Amino acid sequence: MPIAKVHRISATGPDDVSGIADAIAAKRIDPKGVLAVFGKTEGNGCVNDFSRGFATSSLTHFFAEHIGAEAAHKICFVMSGGTEGGMAPHWTVFERAEIEGGTQPALAIGRVHTPDLPGQHLGRKGQIDSVADGVRAAMREAGIDDPADVHFVQIKCPLLTAQRAKQAQAAGHTVATSDTLKSMGLSRAASALGVAIALGEIASDDIRDEDIGTRLDLWSGRASCSAGIELLNHEVVVLGMSSRWSGPLAIDHAVMHDAIDVDPVRDALARLGLPTHKQLDPAGRRAIIALLSKAEASKSATLRGYRHTMLDDSDISPTRHARAFVCGALASVVGHAEIYVSGGAEHQGPDGGGPVALIVDRTAIRR
Amino acid sequence: MPIAKVHRISATGPDDVSGIADAIAAKRIDPKGVLAVFGKTEGNGCVNDFSRGFATSSLTHFFAEHIGAEAAHKICFVMSGGTEGGMAPHWTVFERAEIEGGTQPALAIGRVHTPDLPGQHLGRKGQIDSVADGVRAAMREAGIDDPADVHFVQIKCPLLTAQRAKQAQAAGHTVATSDTLKSMGLSRAASALGVAIALGEIASDDIRDEDIGTRLDLWSGRASCSAGIELLNHEVVVLGMSSRWSGPLAIDHAVMHDAIDVDPVRDALARLGLPTHKQLDPAGRRAIIALLSKAEASKSATLRGYRHTMLDDSDISPTRHARAFVCGALASVVGHAEIYVSGGAEHQGPDGGGPVALIVDRTAIRR
Amino acid sequence: MPIAKVHRISATGPDDVSGIADAIAAKRIDPKGVLAVFGKTEGNGCVNDFSRGFATSSLTHFFAEHIGAEAAHKICFVMSGGTEGGMAPHWTVFERAEIEGGTQPALAIGRVHTPDLPGQHLGRKGQIDSVADGVRAAMREAGIDDPADVHFVQIKCPLLTAQRAKQAQAAGHTVATSDTLKSMGLSRAASALGVAIALGEIASDDIRDEDIGTRLDLWSGRASCSAGIELLNHEVVVLGMSSRWSGPLAIDHAVMHDAIDVDPVRDALARLGLPTHKQLDPAGRRAIIALLSKAEASKSATLRGYRHTMLDDSDISPTRHARAFVCGALASVVGHAEIYVSGGAEHQGPDGGGPVALIVDRTAIRR
Amino acid sequence: MPIAKVHRISATGPDDVSGIADAIAAKRIDPKGVLAVFGKTEGNGCVNDFSRGFATSSLTHFFAEHIGAEAAHKICFVMSGGTEGGMAPHWTVFERAEIEGGTQPALAIGRVHTPDLPGQHLGRKGQIDSVADGVRAAMREAGIDDPADVHFVQIKCPLLTAQRAKQAQAAGHTVATSDTLKSMGLSRAASALGVAIALGEIASDDIRDEDIGTRLDLWSGRASCSAGIELLNHEVVVLGMSSRWSGPLAIDHAVMHDAIDVDPVRDALARLGLPTHKQLDPAGRRAIIALLSKAEASKSATLRGYRHTMLDDSDISPTRHARAFVCGALASVVGHAEIYVSGGAEHQGPDGGGPVALIVDRTAIRR
Repeated sequence: MPIAKVHRISATGPDDVSGIADAIAAKRIDPKGVLAVFGKTEGNGCVNDFSRGFATSSLTHFFAEHIGAEAAHKICFVMSGGTEGGMAPHWTVFERAEIEGGTQPALAIGRVHTPDLPGQHLGRKGQIDSVADGVRAAMREAGIDDPADVHFVQIKCPLLTAQRAKQAQAAGHTVATSDTLKSMGLSRAASALGVAIALGEIASDDIRDEDIGTRLDLWSGRASCSAGIELLNHEVVVLGMSSRWSGPLAIDHAVMHDAIDVDPVRDALARLGLPTHKQLDPAGRRAIIALLSKAEASKSATLRGYRHTMLDDSDISPTRHARAFVCGALASVVGHAEIYVSGGAEHQGPDGGGPVALIVDRTAIRR
Repeated sequence: MPIAKVHRISATGPDDVSGIADAIAAKRIDPKGVLAVFGKTEGNGCVNDFSRGFATSSLTHFFAEHIGAEAAHKICFVMSGGTEGGMAPHWTVFERAEIEGGTQPALAIGRVHTPDLPGQHLGRKGQIDSVADGVRAAMREAGIDDPADVHFVQIKCPLLTAQRAKQAQAAGHTVATSDTLKSMGLSRAASALGVAIALGEIASDDIRDEDIGTRLDLWSGRASCSAGIELLNHEVVVLGMSSRWSGPLAIDHAVMHDAIDVDPVRDALARLGLPTHKQLDPAGRRAIIALLSKAEASKSATLRGYRHTMLDDSDISPTRHARAFVCGALASVVGHAEIYVSGGAEHQGPDGGGPVALIVDRTAIRR
Repeated sequence: MPIAKVHRISATGPDDVSGIADAIAAKRIDPKGVLAVFGKTEGNGCVNDFSRGFATSSLTHFFAEHIGAEAAHKICFVMSGGTEGGMAPHWTVFERAEIEGGTQPALAIGRVHTPDLPGQHLGRKGQIDSVADGVRAAMREAGIDDPADVHFVQIKCPLLTAQRAKQAQAAGHTVATSDTLKSMGLSRAASALGVAIALGEIASDDIRDEDIGTRLDLWSGRASCSAGIELLNHEVVVLGMSSRWSGPLAIDHAVMHDAIDVDPVRDALARLGLPTHKQLDPAGRRAIIALLSKAEASKSATLRGYRHTMLDDSDISPTRHARAFVCGALASVVGHAEIYVSGGAEHQGPDGGGPVALIVDRTAIRR
Repeated sequence: MPIAKVHRISATGPDDVSGIADAIAAKRIDPKGVLAVFGKTEGNGCVNDFSRGFATSSLTHFFAEHIGAEAAHKICFVMSGGTEGGMAPHWTVFERAEIEGGTQPALAIGRVHTPDLPGQHLGRKGQIDSVADGVRAAMREAGIDDPADVHFVQIKCPLLTAQRAKQAQAAGHTVATSDTLKSMGLSRAASALGVAIALGEIASDDIRDEDIGTRLDLWSGRASCSAGIELLNHEVVVLGMSSRWSGPLAIDHAVMHDAIDVDPVRDALARLGLPTHKQLDPAGRRAIIALLSKAEASKSATLRGYRHTMLDDSDISPTRHARAFVCGALASVVGHAEIYVSGGAEHQGPDGGGPVALIVDRTAIRR
């Protein structure tokens, strides 16, 4: 029976694979079973963030040495740039192994790569369809039939550099935007809508090109999308509970309705059996294997009626502000900041809020 | 009998005094009684933050129209730049009025301006002595005898621009640093040590010039210091409880031992009578008139054992990272982000942590 | 007969009016004759640049003390933020006085304020028309009949903050963009097209809303537009040669076709009688009273066939890159960097280039 | 007889080795002869610039495929981050081959790696000595006896991250600074003094630890130093003229005395036979194979008597300002911006200025 293993490993830089190497040497990780690595890398998380590409290149070379180049290229390397505030750069390694017995249902993982996306489809319905297909395929791989059992879908999606936009235009196409930073937002937006459709959160025929990035009422409570300069297609990782998988790990999720809406996260922790009247103590922290979330500056330019200045700051991107701020809000609940807060939450949760997924080791929770 | 009134007022920009004007027109504020205005303004909070000077200039002109230029210049305008993350720009107006009866002890305010500080004293013992004298004078003005009754001391202190450093050097003096950004840190550091000495938290003869900004074991749990380009002296505001003052307002404080150490803040809220098992609800939020705190990136470059990258980011000052992050942590407790989080907490709380003061309206707390 | 006087005065900060005060005290400037002050202020030149508003506020208060509030408000304060690279913050004061005799034609100045622009017109044809009307009115005031005698038109134009966009939308209108930084570009773009139409450089019926900011073949060789948060209308200053004005000053202009196209500037210097085979020597520098220019990152993402990275940098706005770079190119010609290089040159010169105006004192040129 | 070949190749990103691959495929470059690659990469050029490490990693993997890992590790990869303004990211590949006949003297190249530098030596005399030894060794390799024949010495030097400083301190040593950005400056400073001593520009016994980075009168007119997070030792490349080398290439140099002092560069161009009364025309541009220079913000905070604001800008590092500005000044002379302008010129030329080296193809110059 398949078992999902999740390893959270600190990194001292975008090319620091030593922690993963140690885990492989100690037989805690079997590199042949690795399906995906999520990385929080310490670049700016925007267009010219080379920490993501550097990390991807480093991981690709590293795994190629262990399992060969072809197998290494199948691993989903989802690098999310930006470790603002106290956020700690780290890797989260997702592995599939086999187990006899154990607890069911348990955490299940499905992974898919979509085909390359033509530049003219980015931020438009063509991208939505491509992602929705990818999510459905990944659910099948994870053995999840009911969309309600899906708790997190990570999408790594492409962006339009100035050069890619020119290429598409040279081929006679229009592009959704010629502003590279804006293209990252549109790509995340279309990807999130693709997830929402695949999970039945919204209906496909609701959406037109012009809704992408603008209709704030359309959102997924479980999508997390990161754009990166280093890929031209999508990498899709579905995380959920499946009775066809076994093991100690479980996953649940919450939806924050704004940047400081942490009580739903506390409620999810309580459902998983953790005490929540104070910040998690060291034992509670150890039970949480991974916290995955999204952050963004609300387009309303307000937070609970008060003005925020994130959208008017021309020195720091709103995505950087939001990651630092939301990471602070979540870290104050779980008691540390080696968490995965990814910026740019277009259609990923309500305006200014976002989905949060929690993976816990059920055997580490004292009841 | 004196009564302290505290008014928190949103601002749409560094020159937006309309909210204060409205409160004066509605007789909620008597401008003659205003002792101090703390402002969170939306510049970068670093050397070239013109939002602070602009706000000070706007407030000075505004109050001069109401109470004359001479009286306006006596008001302490403590402008703290930087509203990163979701932090809301706002004014906190401190007013002294007279009341018959009421509750004692109550919030008390003392205010003092120190003489101009010569550039060569900045970041050295000369600055410590000047601030300690100022704090003692402000305690006398507030009618506070016991340093234990002081819960917050706000210091606005000067910095060294490239030009000011050259002036001091031209006069034959050395300066503690010729790096302007670093001078802000040294000025805050020396000011905080001045507070610690005046409050008996450390002994005066413990400190040498080279300890300033370096000996992390020396700190005040109640000092908050902001450096600004727009002044050459210090403005000192002492907040505490005094049986010689009356009224509904009370103040308490907590010390955070790192950037996400919010449980001491919860404990202070509980002491003040507020429920703390969840985020404060709207009624609880209304009872909190002001939250005043400090934030900084720990010099250890770690937070609870995990690496943070704030000190290695050459694009965003560590003070900006820290304000965004700590504001997120505190807002997740109190339920909004119109709070005063000031950056650069040298000797203001332990390394990476800082003091937090809470002013509440006791009549608004349901028990 | 009218004479135009131009005074270039260094500033140590956005509120440093001491140099102007000195010139007034020394009778070099008569404040009653001041028509306009162009300032290069040291903020970021983008949305949250408070150095512009602070400078405008400081100048307004200063002149109000000398000539009364009503007269002070008629002065055009055109504050252009951003003194990147070695650019020196400074004021250029434009004054109109009377003279007997002297040389004709000479530098002439016309100044006009347009009505407030509704948010929904910003970046659209309504803004173009408003600016074109303003330029024609300013030419009449300057006594210039032939558009060919106009060498520089400075426009200060408004922008859309998040709040202003919401206001217009609340009133049932659409806005051209809800991205504040982008609104600055659209406002400058529409203003420049207004100048081009008034000067006959392009035909009015050529332009549709969607051309604004996009059709790079439409441009003025004499427009310079700066957007600022501190105004809701346009301030228009026309500079040219008129036989109805007298005095030692003359103006000429050049069009740079890209960011380093300095030979046309050298040619203009040569026409004005200055030697150009080397960098200007100190005598030549003294003859140049003011150099006014525009800078922008080319949308082609290339400069003479090589890639530039300005559009892909999410840490520094392209306008800041371009000002630093073009200021370096121009300063290498004229021998100092107290020059006025304003960012964002949409429709102001060809893509990546921009207009340059030179005001010289003809009596200071050795022939 | 040895011949030096120099190839300037555009790059579309830190990992774009395709141009070098093309040149190898076309037999224009023999990878076995490559001694060094200088890269201008598009990160921020400061502490957290991952574009340098990414480029080094990409080049190392690339050359390892062609010539094996051991030989690839001997190539000096000198990555200088920061392509501000219009500067074009590119590689300059230095190759040593054999030739019969040709012109002597000609460009000669010497290359050396120093041993790893302990953290406690960084920014101190230990680093100066290590670099001076390296330069002397590289001159021997280049066949240059007279220091006057050396025209450029490129040093790639290490920096102190927060972690490296802690390591040295844990081992019982002090470090010159615990501020990472400052450590880059000290490392460049000590390296430049090492060059100056090796070339006889200053005397070794002149220098004490406290002079490093402070005594502005001590400088080399031919040193260029870049600090990078990705190495722990120094890479030294000496470029000069040697009668033991042959070929069409020649090198000369100039010293700029401030950021816009371009006339010495024009004089050097004239010595090499190029016309300089205007910007270089396309033929002149083709004759210049490489322009290598340094840029920095003058510590005096002025440029030719006018204030600059680079040192007071807390949003953009002074090194980024200076690169953009100086690149503009130099590009306005040579007619394009695919040039190598490296930031941080401590002891590399006079305060605010820096060395400039020009490599030309003598056969491409029309006389």
